[in-house]
Amino acid sequence: MHRVVSETRVLEANERLAARNRQLFGDSGVFVVNLMSAPGAGKTTLLERTIERLRDELRIGVIEGDLMTTIDADRIGALGVPVFQITTGSVCHLDAQMVGRALEQFHPGGLDLLVIENVGNLVCPAEFDLGEDVRVMVWSTLEGADKPRKYPVMFHEAAVVLLNKIDLLPYAGVSLDELRANVRAVNPAAELLPLSCRTGEGLEEWVAWLKAQVIRGRGDGLEAA
Amino acid sequence: MHRVVSETRVLEANERLAARNRQLFGDSGVFVVNLMSAPGAGKTTLLERTIERLRDELRIGVIEGDLMTTIDADRIGALGVPVFQITTGSVCHLDAQMVGRALEQFHPGGLDLLVIENVGNLVCPAEFDLGEDVRVMVWSTLEGADKPRKYPVMFHEAAVVLLNKIDLLPYAGVSLDELRANVRAVNPAAELLPLSCRTGEGLEEWVAWLKAQVIRGRGDGLEAA
Repeated sequence: MHRVVSETRVLEANERLAARNRQLFGDSGVFVVNLMSAPGAGKTTLLERTIERLRDELRIGVIEGDLMTTIDADRIGALGVPVFQITTGSVCHLDAQMVGRALEQFHPGGLDLLVIENVGNLVCPAEFDLGEDVRVMVWSTLEGADKPRKYPVMFHEAAVVLLNKIDLLPYAGVSLDELRANVRAVNPAAELLPLSCRTGEGLEEWVAWLKAQVIRGRGDGLEAA
Repeated sequence: MHRVVSETRVLEANERLAARNRQLFGDSGVFVVNLMSAPGAGKTTLLERTIERLRDELRIGVIEGDLMTTIDADRIGALGVPVFQITTGSVCHLDAQMVGRALEQFHPGGLDLLVIENVGNLVCPAEFDLGEDVRVMVWSTLEGADKPRKYPVMFHEAAVVLLNKIDLLPYAGVSLDELRANVRAVNPAAELLPLSCRTGEGLEEWVAWLKAQVIRGRGDGLEAA
């Protein structure tokens, strides 16, 4: 954030717009995930694997946030789910206003689950409520065990931390227990799900967790797996 | 950046302060590297391996930029080189003003090489000139082959792109040639040095490149390796 002096005012304005988005999501009966991570942690691949597993059971839509290019939106669109692209230009995160404008064109009515894939960045996205129901963070085993302490805000705000690329843990120079403990030190309440989008390990647990959240959010008769 | 409307003014002010830093660096005869990457690409480990190889030949100092914690500064300090910590709080990049203030306490006179390790972030650091001589970017093989297209500014501004973690290339689902081509598409002039801080492969080439830059920058009789 370039002008620290104005930060409080910017975040207050964002809260108001996030509340408006949240109202719209609630009225639409859609469960909304704000998906965040560092660049390259595997958000888009996770989303592909998730959509493949859930698209026959849930009506899923995606909002893709990127500085530029529609690479991610094209990948998601290829799976046959509706996707809307927000191009941020030089802005390093999504905010509630960008999402609010997107919702004017990409109405979530009729969806069970809307995933908003944020810009790849461990810092600023965590400060901007988009009106989501839940924040999901992807952390990959090779990013360094110290990241929760160095970037605590995002880890602290996540309801679930997906520990991706566990197939590469032998090269990370650190144990799964240590990675878990480092998340817990910042966020004792976070759900911690190890997985590998490459091998598929752990994906069923994540998909079951997500589906349970959607069902709980709707409070209706959609059957659990 | 949270207030796009004020971006131009902020960057203009930064340019003026960067020019002042650059003057101070020139007067001090120190060569300055701005080291940038996504979180977890391996900047601090690279810096450790670099310092170990050059500390007997060059007088090296380090400025560490981090949101919080002195983890990186402590790692560098343990190698016996002077290190100064800039704690940015919630700010996702260093700027010329932060570095200028640091230089009031941490004067680079007497150093051959000053490395400024920026905040781990692929977006905003690239927009802020710190007064450095050269921008060095670390990109790790597992971050996804599409990153130069998705985050072009940092790749475009780098004089050298260090392609780290090449020992894990078999798990990246992409060839070294493809990674090279993707950088070249954004920055045809960049020096591209593959290496692995874990195995040591490629480190000598990087250290030789850096030492040559320092010698060229000083224009004096320091002997090349």
